[in-house]
Amino acid sequence: MPGSVQSIERAAAILRLLARGSGRLGVGEISTSLGLAKGTTHGILKTLQDVGFVEQDKASGKYQLGATLLHLGTSYLDVNELRSRAINWADALASRSGEAVRIGTPLDGKVLVVHHVFRPDDSLQTLDTGTLLPVHATALGKVLLAYDSGVAAELAGATLEQYTRRTLVTPAALRKAVAEVRETGWAGEAEEFAAGQASIAAPIRGYGGYVVGAISIAGSVDRLYPSAGRVDQSLVTFVQNASRAISRDLGAGRW
Amino acid sequence: MPGSVQSIERAAAILRLLARGSGRLGVGEISTSLGLAKGTTHGILKTLQDVGFVEQDKASGKYQLGATLLHLGTSYLDVNELRSRAINWADALASRSGEAVRIGTPLDGKVLVVHHVFRPDDSLQTLDTGTLLPVHATALGKVLLAYDSGVAAELAGATLEQYTRRTLVTPAALRKAVAEVRETGWAGEAEEFAAGQASIAAPIRGYGGYVVGAISIAGSVDRLYPSAGRVDQSLVTFVQNASRAISRDLGAGRW
Repeated sequence: MPGSVQSIERAAAILRLLARGSGRLGVGEISTSLGLAKGTTHGILKTLQDVGFVEQDKASGKYQLGATLLHLGTSYLDVNELRSRAINWADALASRSGEAVRIGTPLDGKVLVVHHVFRPDDSLQTLDTGTLLPVHATALGKVLLAYDSGVAAELAGATLEQYTRRTLVTPAALRKAVAEVRETGWAGEAEEFAAGQASIAAPIRGYGGYVVGAISIAGSVDRLYPSAGRVDQSLVTFVQNASRAISRDLGAGRW
Repeated sequence: MPGSVQSIERAAAILRLLARGSGRLGVGEISTSLGLAKGTTHGILKTLQDVGFVEQDKASGKYQLGATLLHLGTSYLDVNELRSRAINWADALASRSGEAVRIGTPLDGKVLVVHHVFRPDDSLQTLDTGTLLPVHATALGKVLLAYDSGVAAELAGATLEQYTRRTLVTPAALRKAVAEVRETGWAGEAEEFAAGQASIAAPIRGYGGYVVGAISIAGSVDRLYPSAGRVDQSLVTFVQNASRAISRDLGAGRW
């Protein structure tokens, strides 16, 4: 049934479009962006509204994402095995390292944060579960890039955005970094995404030994890379121990 | 285009089904639940998998919700005007009252939590943004029930689950409670959802003065209803002041 497949694909494209930018678009803007006839777009939007996936702003008549998606997104987290197996280990890693912990999984050539443990101190922190991080500028992303060919394929040809003067923005620099990750089994990043910040990550393997995600600590570059820009090796060990424990729980077998 | 509308509706029904219960279902189980031919279900699932809305568990072959939904759900929160207008007021209400604060909006005859501020103390608390709360057993729900005819319609004929011995489980008791909410402009609940817990909520009005959500504080019944089961009126005032401030910011006008 190619017809129905197409309408679901178009509906998904509309939802992804609404998830970008300002998040509120008119029928005309959506039709133009996706190259669809206005009537087609309108029919799909009406159906998406009926099922609660989009809402129409009463004042402007524009469309935005609907509340049902928040519930489905939360339900995804509830059944996400990577996350449920990792929660206790992530808590332990945060207290051991004294840093914020994140679990990431690949999505659309980016890193989707599926779990985030705050740094165990009194500082104000914002939960970023559900946000997308760049692959080339984070330790989580470098790990996924090193072990997931899908992520590498999605990144091929993409412009590597420069976040700081240390961000790796050439394919050659990134290839070198990825080779190092494969050799050492962990990835690091010092001020490549944000000034003053650093992160360290290791792969999480699932059923069959395939890499399904990564776990990282992130914090001040002065703590993670304390002596002349060299990594604190004990922190690397903490992260690797956590990644191995989660992989074992996910049934990765010995590796 | 009735055909495409139908396939999007079916896709949405599959996603909602996967969001319930254990969250992992085979093609046969989904077909039976929704009364669809197995081939039809399979075609929709394949498309949903292509767009990242479902994932197939490699070991069991069963389907579960996909990572894209988490990202869409988070994007919903980013553009949700109710939430963005309410965040600062919710923080202020939490510090003023010393209790946890929630913002709720109606979804499928339940209350969807779109924002949650932890109680300002050192206790371990779990973020429940994205979860669904029952309408009849929470202060948030009673407010929505009192002012949103859609919520009332969804609840009509539904079984009112008994959470504690104080839960209102008859339509008559609920009607009386709703009438009180309309008279006083706020809703309360003491140990109707969980033993030892209570909540107080007030309506949030949006464009045109319509109720678009509710804001609540929740905490120990000993603090919210301290003297012989009577509510702490100063807490009610805090909640009502917050709800009015948010409504003003949402352009509800004077009411």
